[in-house]
Amino acid sequence: MSERKQHKIMLTEDEMPTRWYNVLHDLPTPPPPVLHPGTGQPVGPDDLAPLFPMDLIMQEVSTDQYVDIPEEVLDVYRLWRPSPLFRAHRLEQALDTPARIYYKYEGVSPAGSHKPNTAVPQVYYNAKAGIKKLSTETGAGQWGTALAFACSQFDVECEIWQVRASYDQKPYRKIMIETFGGTIHPSPSALTEAGRSILAKDPDSTGSLGIAISEAVEVAAKDPTINYALGSVLNHVLLHQTIIGEETLLQLAQVGEQADLIVGCTGGGSNFGGLMFPFLRERWAGAMNPVIRAVEPAACPSLTQGTYAYDFGDTIGMTPLMKMHTLGHDFIPDPIHSGGLRYHGMSPLISHLYEDKQIEAVAKPQSECFAAGVLFARTEGIVPAPEPTHALAATVEEALRCKESGEEKVILTALCGHGHLDLAAYDAFLSGTIEDHDWNDANTQASVAAALEKLPVLSS
Amino acid sequence: MSERKQHKIMLTEDEMPTRWYNVLHDLPTPPPPVLHPGTGQPVGPDDLAPLFPMDLIMQEVSTDQYVDIPEEVLDVYRLWRPSPLFRAHRLEQALDTPARIYYKYEGVSPAGSHKPNTAVPQVYYNAKAGIKKLSTETGAGQWGTALAFACSQFDVECEIWQVRASYDQKPYRKIMIETFGGTIHPSPSALTEAGRSILAKDPDSTGSLGIAISEAVEVAAKDPTINYALGSVLNHVLLHQTIIGEETLLQLAQVGEQADLIVGCTGGGSNFGGLMFPFLRERWAGAMNPVIRAVEPAACPSLTQGTYAYDFGDTIGMTPLMKMHTLGHDFIPDPIHSGGLRYHGMSPLISHLYEDKQIEAVAKPQSECFAAGVLFARTEGIVPAPEPTHALAATVEEALRCKESGEEKVILTALCGHGHLDLAAYDAFLSGTIEDHDWNDANTQASVAAALEKLPVLSS
Repeated sequence: MSERKQHKIMLTEDEMPTRWYNVLHDLPTPPPPVLHPGTGQPVGPDDLAPLFPMDLIMQEVSTDQYVDIPEEVLDVYRLWRPSPLFRAHRLEQALDTPARIYYKYEGVSPAGSHKPNTAVPQVYYNAKAGIKKLSTETGAGQWGTALAFACSQFDVECEIWQVRASYDQKPYRKIMIETFGGTIHPSPSALTEAGRSILAKDPDSTGSLGIAISEAVEVAAKDPTINYALGSVLNHVLLHQTIIGEETLLQLAQVGEQADLIVGCTGGGSNFGGLMFPFLRERWAGAMNPVIRAVEPAACPSLTQGTYAYDFGDTIGMTPLMKMHTLGHDFIPDPIHSGGLRYHGMSPLISHLYEDKQIEAVAKPQSECFAAGVLFARTEGIVPAPEPTHALAATVEEALRCKESGEEKVILTALCGHGHLDLAAYDAFLSGTIEDHDWNDANTQASVAAALEKLPVLSS
Repeated sequence: MSERKQHKIMLTEDEMPTRWYNVLHDLPTPPPPVLHPGTGQPVGPDDLAPLFPMDLIMQEVSTDQYVDIPEEVLDVYRLWRPSPLFRAHRLEQALDTPARIYYKYEGVSPAGSHKPNTAVPQVYYNAKAGIKKLSTETGAGQWGTALAFACSQFDVECEIWQVRASYDQKPYRKIMIETFGGTIHPSPSALTEAGRSILAKDPDSTGSLGIAISEAVEVAAKDPTINYALGSVLNHVLLHQTIIGEETLLQLAQVGEQADLIVGCTGGGSNFGGLMFPFLRERWAGAMNPVIRAVEPAACPSLTQGTYAYDFGDTIGMTPLMKMHTLGHDFIPDPIHSGGLRYHGMSPLISHLYEDKQIEAVAKPQSECFAAGVLFARTEGIVPAPEPTHALAATVEEALRCKESGEEKVILTALCGHGHLDLAAYDAFLSGTIEDHDWNDANTQASVAAALEKLPVLSS
């Protein structure tokens, strides 16, 4: 081994960016407004006030280019940020590729994913507004863990409704949430009207994200000291996540590299948006010209197979209407292991950029993703969460293309979390019981067609 | 929040130490030799050659002050090293203490603990010697995970016997080992003579570390292409772990601090030794004068309650005889959650230093340890492995003492791993089902007295 290789590109705490980037300021075309489901008219700040503090509502609609990160939030960020950017020397070597692969690793956070980047400011602004408790839903549990951690930092109570199927299958997530001081209930629960109405019909219901949202929202709407928090999709969530991309720009500059291709997995879109928005800004300013590629699961391909239309954010149909790529709000994706990517829609900002041809998208079956995840673990040493194995599969594909072509392309990818609490999925893959789902089979097509027929019809 | 606080003290990859420190060079008095169990005479390198490569055997007996770390090992270390040193501002604040608390965090490694610091060089030297496969035992699974990761880096096969009780209770450890490419068997297994002889007597045996060692050693002893690897206790293991302390010295110097007290948990002693040996060197050189305190579980207190005598390293009595603090090689500690601290003996080097009054020791019940672990998670954001919660409990105790006395003491502690795969233990604590065990109860005293009666009698 002759040449000394640098694996990690680090920033000091002093070098950490101190403001979030708001992509709304620079969009080539303005995004469609969010509509009130009753009136069909754009929603205003007051419509959102029962659930969110005014600071977050103003961030949701702001067109300022930058938002200063409060010092109290920076101080918590510094528990793990700046996060490392890795050069994947050992993965490159295993692939025998001339491509240079970089990955931005968010698994160093207390919750093990990128989610605390928004959980911390959300809890901070709620605490500042005098809110004593936050309610939320969680599916696989990443978001619930992040919110429970953030609440522990600002002395705010945290109450979480977790889809019962996940609650029963993933006890470690529940314990981690409780260790951070959060309270967690399986959903449907007998604690809310929404939950009781479901249980009355089906006492053995294993729940759904839509039901869990209804329970969390109901609790927040009924009590002025309780607010609700959401972990993806919304503009302010993606705003907070831009700390990822801002750090990465500095880190790549430190080693004199520019990304030719940026690859990230997309569920609601917050990790992908957080990484790539600052790169879009640089592209629009003419400073660089990366191709930007979203990778979604073949079992839930909202960008590549969905319709661009106004739809509800939740399954039950309580939220404002957002224009987004959607498979229909009551489409239930196959139970793939990447719980964080099983969302029927896509962030309106990401959807708008996709429609505007600023970004491209591909879909990957989970077996290909886990194969990339295992290769990654055995070369780079990190067992990735199932979600970012989608980005890794597309990274490996591109690196092998470079091997054919001889291109020394710089590929930047987002490793948004570790898989320590998702090892059962690796067990399924290693023992050969992972199933891929054909999007074109008759049942799936019938189910998505039925869901798309239920898209809300706008009166105006 | 007025003053900007630095949470992490980082070193660049360039600043990472490139040699291990060998405490044998500087010991005030020479340690007792390791003896052959048959002859009672000191063992020589040839006695160890069937199990270990000569490079490691020479490190075991070397008195050179430093050993250069091979570039191939440094390159793997750089996947996660240098590891961060944290200032625990938020824990200090919660305790309202004038003490300044620093923790060296080894959970950033691929296996989530300090174990890869020795697994990587052990596999490297074996691969260099032409060894194709390593066999080992694992209890809770930290060591097995580390060895499987290290084997993946040097294309060496890895075969692990895990105590069946843990194999059945902790499926995530098994999956992580398999994700890194290792093969894992519950022990006792039908694959070895030792395992078959146990199963013949008790087909439902849940195993023990002693049986697992016998199986792993048997496989290595029978095949010249297979060697055996051990994750603690031995001199070369502690040598490799000194990278922890060497980094910490540089990090404390970076912020102009000197440790007044160093606190680490001890099972076999490798994490504690790795942190404090370089500080002992500095003390012996007159550069600083820290108090150094080992923390052991009240249920397995080898230093504070054991006898300093020659004993076997394993339960069955196959290994050379080492002079150490021991509870007797067939003492079975209570099933506490800190599996990594349930060892009947203590590293001969640590034992020798304790006997020489260079270090002190305390024992802590696990309920106090988990309480400290939960406080730590809710302030610093990291859920600690059960083992280092012992060090945290002693750290909290000292910080509260400082609160009483007003002393601005600098406390350095070793956070040797995260608890992501140990969350069941936190569940037990949070739900109030953790039990503490009284060392002085009649059954425990009878059991350790019986074990001490079986200490080997030396012929010479």
